[in-house]
Amino acid sequence: MCAAGNHRDPIAVAIDDNAAAGIDASASLIKNLVVANHILFDQNVVDAFGHVSVRHDKRPDRFLLARNVAPGRVAADDIVEFTLDGEAVNANGRNVYLERFIHGEIYRRREDVQSVVHSHSHAIVPLSIVKGMRMRPVFHMAGFIGQGAPVFEIREAGGESTDLLISSSQLGRALAEKFDSSDIVLMRGHGSTVVGQSIQQAVYRAVYAELNARYQLEAMQLGEVVHLTEGESRAAVRNVEAQMHRPWDLWVEQARARRAAG
Amino acid sequence: MCAAGNHRDPIAVAIDDNAAAGIDASASLIKNLVVANHILFDQNVVDAFGHVSVRHDKRPDRFLLARNVAPGRVAADDIVEFTLDGEAVNANGRNVYLERFIHGEIYRRREDVQSVVHSHSHAIVPLSIVKGMRMRPVFHMAGFIGQGAPVFEIREAGGESTDLLISSSQLGRALAEKFDSSDIVLMRGHGSTVVGQSIQQAVYRAVYAELNARYQLEAMQLGEVVHLTEGESRAAVRNVEAQMHRPWDLWVEQARARRAAG
Amino acid sequence: MCAAGNHRDPIAVAIDDNAAAGIDASASLIKNLVVANHILFDQNVVDAFGHVSVRHDKRPDRFLLARNVAPGRVAADDIVEFTLDGEAVNANGRNVYLERFIHGEIYRRREDVQSVVHSHSHAIVPLSIVKGMRMRPVFHMAGFIGQGAPVFEIREAGGESTDLLISSSQLGRALAEKFDSSDIVLMRGHGSTVVGQSIQQAVYRAVYAELNARYQLEAMQLGEVVHLTEGESRAAVRNVEAQMHRPWDLWVEQARARRAAG
Amino acid sequence: MCAAGNHRDPIAVAIDDNAAAGIDASASLIKNLVVANHILFDQNVVDAFGHVSVRHDKRPDRFLLARNVAPGRVAADDIVEFTLDGEAVNANGRNVYLERFIHGEIYRRREDVQSVVHSHSHAIVPLSIVKGMRMRPVFHMAGFIGQGAPVFEIREAGGESTDLLISSSQLGRALAEKFDSSDIVLMRGHGSTVVGQSIQQAVYRAVYAELNARYQLEAMQLGEVVHLTEGESRAAVRNVEAQMHRPWDLWVEQARARRAAG
Repeated sequence: MCAAGNHRDPIAVAIDDNAAAGIDASASLIKNLVVANHILFDQNVVDAFGHVSVRHDKRPDRFLLARNVAPGRVAADDIVEFTLDGEAVNANGRNVYLERFIHGEIYRRREDVQSVVHSHSHAIVPLSIVKGMRMRPVFHMAGFIGQGAPVFEIREAGGESTDLLISSSQLGRALAEKFDSSDIVLMRGHGSTVVGQSIQQAVYRAVYAELNARYQLEAMQLGEVVHLTEGESRAAVRNVEAQMHRPWDLWVEQARARRAAG
Repeated sequence: MCAAGNHRDPIAVAIDDNAAAGIDASASLIKNLVVANHILFDQNVVDAFGHVSVRHDKRPDRFLLARNVAPGRVAADDIVEFTLDGEAVNANGRNVYLERFIHGEIYRRREDVQSVVHSHSHAIVPLSIVKGMRMRPVFHMAGFIGQGAPVFEIREAGGESTDLLISSSQLGRALAEKFDSSDIVLMRGHGSTVVGQSIQQAVYRAVYAELNARYQLEAMQLGEVVHLTEGESRAAVRNVEAQMHRPWDLWVEQARARRAAG
Repeated sequence: MCAAGNHRDPIAVAIDDNAAAGIDASASLIKNLVVANHILFDQNVVDAFGHVSVRHDKRPDRFLLARNVAPGRVAADDIVEFTLDGEAVNANGRNVYLERFIHGEIYRRREDVQSVVHSHSHAIVPLSIVKGMRMRPVFHMAGFIGQGAPVFEIREAGGESTDLLISSSQLGRALAEKFDSSDIVLMRGHGSTVVGQSIQQAVYRAVYAELNARYQLEAMQLGEVVHLTEGESRAAVRNVEAQMHRPWDLWVEQARARRAAG
Repeated sequence: MCAAGNHRDPIAVAIDDNAAAGIDASASLIKNLVVANHILFDQNVVDAFGHVSVRHDKRPDRFLLARNVAPGRVAADDIVEFTLDGEAVNANGRNVYLERFIHGEIYRRREDVQSVVHSHSHAIVPLSIVKGMRMRPVFHMAGFIGQGAPVFEIREAGGESTDLLISSSQLGRALAEKFDSSDIVLMRGHGSTVVGQSIQQAVYRAVYAELNARYQLEAMQLGEVVHLTEGESRAAVRNVEAQMHRPWDLWVEQARARRAAG
């Protein structure tokens, strides 16, 4: 795919915009959040929908998330600061995502989490709608799935007639509870949310969760599937995720080249 | 895919061509119809076949549709005005689509409909040919599928030896009747047609109907599938489709960038 | 995908090379054969393997086919003239395809055929290796499949230890016999061959045969599949293939733009 | 996909870097190893992970492999020389791949092998995790799979809690033993490794192993699958692999054009 045309370089302007936007987070944090948006789009994890956030590095009771815009188009001055209740601190009239509560409630419940990716990636949605299905880690890049991803059924928290969106603190809290036992949660008929201890880790996991879903979906059509043991999952997280700089560096380079070519 | 080369910018020339083409619709309507053609091609909803129309905004008994040309190549001066009977008002010798009757007869039967997309997108055709299959909404972007898409079996209206095309008013009327209970109709061995109250909505639905079909097709291979309840479908249409400007803006930007880079 | 770089325009030089190559066919025939190679590559019908030929328009006992080179790289001076026995008339030391006998023997047996495409496209190979499987036309673009594509099992003609290639006149004749009842033949563990009365028709059929295979493959996983009746197939060939200029024009434009952008 | 931008041409600088890197192998060997990395990335055999090596052409007890970097980004000065024990001779502080033991132990055990590709390509991982599954050659490009690819189950060599990586000589040796009877070995929950008598052959086999897996996976969903006989496999290797220059030349041209366009 060819990138969108004649943009300013969203990375290059990050530092100045950062000041302009009145957000007191470190410049590199915002820079990485912007490029994370582009990477998730380039890697087909998000389309016009889906979002990635990061916890504010100077105020752990705040997080940063783009305004209501497609991830592939996010620039530094689209980043908005939010309280954990999902209230925008510096929206200045800009529209914000309906589902910001996903992020705030997870940061509240999981102090260790520094970044959250919510997406509708293509192999995960089908897994989320099959009765009794459990996504399990089937290859070494996806040890973070642990002993299987819980499925959030919004009917339990919101009844039979919701729009499936996590559009309130109450629904956000119900979803966040599922993260007590997992770093990834499937959302029935909707997608998934994955957490990490850095933007890089959350992005890495979102990309490889999608691949794991695709492999599991294909393998299950042929027979009984071998998934990782608990020991394998833990070892894979420890050792394979230590290599995450390798895809990250590649993805950053690709994201910049695509946008520069636009 | 990179777009075809050295074109004039089809958006930029819209207003003048509009006058030149002798169509008394608003310039923005034609502009959006042209870009809708490009978006549907870029998003793999149409290939060389398939078409999108809009009801004339000053004459509700007329509609606008490109002449017989591949959607990805449509420019403003390819737009032709038609009566609801499918007669070209200003063809000036240009060839027109054999299946223009799809559009005219739906506009006649459904006064609320402002735009129609007909396509052969890749996951919908397989669903259309499985006996007893019903496409149902399985994720929150596709609430418009409601309680399931009817399948139009042309043998009922045209007998056992048609070419499957909706190439007459009679066949168009038979198809249009299926829209009494649905905003999307599958056409056996052919594709689908989807309607909206704006070009943006019809395009959005065509893109996400394809994704819904793909998800359903994959999930059905693994087990029993959970689809949206009637309440969920309605809420999803109300709230999720309110966000449709987000993909539309992205797609417009991509369509322009691709053609500018050609 | 971005096209290969800094090439001469293979279309532009066709006429001169034509003379240079010493082939007495019409310039437009060679020009279309070159672009057909590019189209088949761009549309993912061929990769480095597969080939398209055309019957010589002044000598029906000759046909034109590229030398041994990947189709996406063919230029006019790569075109070689062959007798129906598969002997190169003007190879001048250039290597030729091992499977040229496919083409020669079909032209010999089917006087009406003007163009032949042999490919390994991705959905057809799987269908060719399933016991008892028959590819049938399941949508209106693929009426030319008629009442189902015969499968050529090379073991019947060449025994249990061939390389599966049609590398002799004897094997070519055995394959050509299958075309008595069909315009497309699957080759077990290998791919398919399709014929047409023009380059445009053969290319069109190769592209849509692949799509038909994909749809059939997906639909069969979900239930019983409705295929076209004999009457529908005939009507579809008559009326839908009359529209083949529409994809052809688009594909030519794309092929040129991609190579110009290289 | 368009390649990453403003690089030096990694091919062009190969010879000088070669001297600079202090590796006494022939310049063309390093040049081909660099382009092999790019081809495997372009053909979707590797993403940020996976690697290709070549045996040193002057010292058969050494092999060449890139430092720890994504294959699509490898340049000549990223190439490192290793002993068969997996010790870097000229790392100069650069990080190396955890799994270099795959390569060293195969070169030790199989004197005929000149090149090794390890990858996680997308259709092979699913096949590797289905109990009792055997990948078999199903089309003529994949005769090298012979009578089926063994599956390496790391639990047999490393116990129930490994990270699935071949990160020691001991695990490398266990994997290498599987190559006594095959030129390709699947690795459960991980990917595959394939060997060849040249870089070109190993790359060719990695690309077509992936395609074979995809075809087998799709065909098995429809019914009983016909695979190549032993005689067909041997004949296909002998005759079809003799054509491997055709895809190689195409892939080299594409790899250069993509990087030049960056």
